[in-house]
Amino acid sequence: MNVVIENDKAIVNHLELKELVAKVLTSVDVPKEDAKIVADVMVSADLKGIESHGIRWLDVYLQRIKAGSVKPVTDLKVVQEKAGLLLLDAQSGLGQVAMAKGIQMGIEKAKQSGVCVVAVRNSNHFGATCYYTELATKSNMAAMVMTNGTPLMAPWGGVTPCIGTNPISFGFPSDAAPVILDMATTATARGKVFVAAQHGRQLEPGLAINKDGEPTTDPKEALEGVLLPFGGPKGYGMSLAIDIMAGILTSSNHGKNIKSLYGDLEAVQNIGHFALIVNIEDFMAVDDFMAGMQVSRKELKSSKLAKGFSQIFLPGEIEANTMKQQLQDGVILPVASWNMLQDWAKKLDIQ
Amino acid sequence: MNVVIENDKAIVNHLELKELVAKVLTSVDVPKEDAKIVADVMVSADLKGIESHGIRWLDVYLQRIKAGSVKPVTDLKVVQEKAGLLLLDAQSGLGQVAMAKGIQMGIEKAKQSGVCVVAVRNSNHFGATCYYTELATKSNMAAMVMTNGTPLMAPWGGVTPCIGTNPISFGFPSDAAPVILDMATTATARGKVFVAAQHGRQLEPGLAINKDGEPTTDPKEALEGVLLPFGGPKGYGMSLAIDIMAGILTSSNHGKNIKSLYGDLEAVQNIGHFALIVNIEDFMAVDDFMAGMQVSRKELKSSKLAKGFSQIFLPGEIEANTMKQQLQDGVILPVASWNMLQDWAKKLDIQ
Repeated sequence: MNVVIENDKAIVNHLELKELVAKVLTSVDVPKEDAKIVADVMVSADLKGIESHGIRWLDVYLQRIKAGSVKPVTDLKVVQEKAGLLLLDAQSGLGQVAMAKGIQMGIEKAKQSGVCVVAVRNSNHFGATCYYTELATKSNMAAMVMTNGTPLMAPWGGVTPCIGTNPISFGFPSDAAPVILDMATTATARGKVFVAAQHGRQLEPGLAINKDGEPTTDPKEALEGVLLPFGGPKGYGMSLAIDIMAGILTSSNHGKNIKSLYGDLEAVQNIGHFALIVNIEDFMAVDDFMAGMQVSRKELKSSKLAKGFSQIFLPGEIEANTMKQQLQDGVILPVASWNMLQDWAKKLDIQ
Repeated sequence: MNVVIENDKAIVNHLELKELVAKVLTSVDVPKEDAKIVADVMVSADLKGIESHGIRWLDVYLQRIKAGSVKPVTDLKVVQEKAGLLLLDAQSGLGQVAMAKGIQMGIEKAKQSGVCVVAVRNSNHFGATCYYTELATKSNMAAMVMTNGTPLMAPWGGVTPCIGTNPISFGFPSDAAPVILDMATTATARGKVFVAAQHGRQLEPGLAINKDGEPTTDPKEALEGVLLPFGGPKGYGMSLAIDIMAGILTSSNHGKNIKSLYGDLEAVQNIGHFALIVNIEDFMAVDDFMAGMQVSRKELKSSKLAKGFSQIFLPGEIEANTMKQQLQDGVILPVASWNMLQDWAKKLDIQ
């Protein structure tokens, strides 16, 4: 596999990268088709420049598979099925496999019922949330996806971590790049704090407090402390709403009951996901929807600019541009992630 | 009707207030049952202490009904029905009537299909979004409700108002007060800026820019300018997602195409709403859900407190406490709203 190392970056072909990641996963007993899904979710994030959600997660996934807390085979079971609902049990398998398959099943049901909610229980970290909304947009569906996770955020007015960075994504097809919003309900994603720590960069103020409840811009202190919600009490409220929908409602772990992703590798996490899939065609002709999206984009893009800005972007547009570039020129990885992948490949005796 | 005036506040019995508001509405040809719904939505907000979304809206509703842009009779038409979907046309009627009836219809469908999306086109301002999620919780449903509205927010990086303050609410039944999150996607709701202007109060910094694109804390300048999204680009993304789901997807007006609620009283607004209703019983026993909610509440409430806080609240808890108090002691209204109601009652010759 060809790689160009430039300073702290490694540049590789995305197809070769996906193949290597998938090979590593199959060597720890992940079925070939599932390994392809997980590799696609991770490499897609790197392609979009979302380094925090890219192949750097592979390390902890492999550690957890080895420790037995993540099952390499995702035996996805349908717990409940109604016209507008699929409740699935991932049985401690891979979050990516559970959600990607769930979205595909939900799309078929939404074609029948107009709308389908796909809820997943007893699952694991599924990578970047935007992957699944974007997947739905490819079938002309509008989608909303959320997941809960390790308690890292304090409630508004508190300093004890009680709820996750619980991200939410909305996705809509468009005549240009799909409109994809993906955001943690903390002021920053924990993955981004890791990346800052890795690069020795300070955080912006207002993102985290240390373990004594004092504001900090040191990413290492932030990782031992608590992340702050985005938008104050609103972000807290959203994180809680997501914990309820993805966690309580699916009978998964929720709140403080979710074990740390890194802390105790042998403890199952059993988190939950919640997805809403909406069949646009049952609302209107898809062409008319696209025309509406075009009007919206043109209005936003022609806004008078604020000081310090040179362009208005739609959610997901910067990531789509980065992906286009990197599909051509190669994926840029932090060299630490590349070395981690090489180390695992060597350890698992992969050529 | 008994009223106690204290400084700039009027205190009245909530039942008498609802009756008077309903009478005013019936006198401009709103059917009696519909008038009761609209009065309940407005007075409930005042009862909760959400003055910005209470009976103060009555003035513009009446002006719009008189001008012909809001139809007093809400002829709610089913445009599309599938197992998980109800697409309704409010035909320029009252938003409160369309959404409250839509939620009731959606609850019945969710009992069959597990989940129902209720989308409403060609509607009008429906008051506080939390009213509808709370309505759903009374039937043991989890709910999410959103609406678009007059363009008042600039896209991230711009200064031209292109999208609304587009609120979103999540609601969940609980063994204590229902957990109800309701938030504008702007850093503050426009109604709250009006209230600040009415009371001659300055705004907090970071909520708005004036018409020249400069930060302002003057509510009057803010009303002529642009509101800022909450949480920066995240609030912008959420507002846009809501405009797409409630506006574009329902074939309602959206973005800059929505006419000002106050500016041109004869121009129809034809905004859209989007609601997701989830039947908890199809996921798990309701008692088990309530047990989960209790665990969550206890965890949050027992968080170590941050400096300056004396208690952790759950979303909607402060409002539920205020309501309990005011149901007993009377609703506290700004005297300006009370006078507005009295003026209309006199003008419409109501005893």
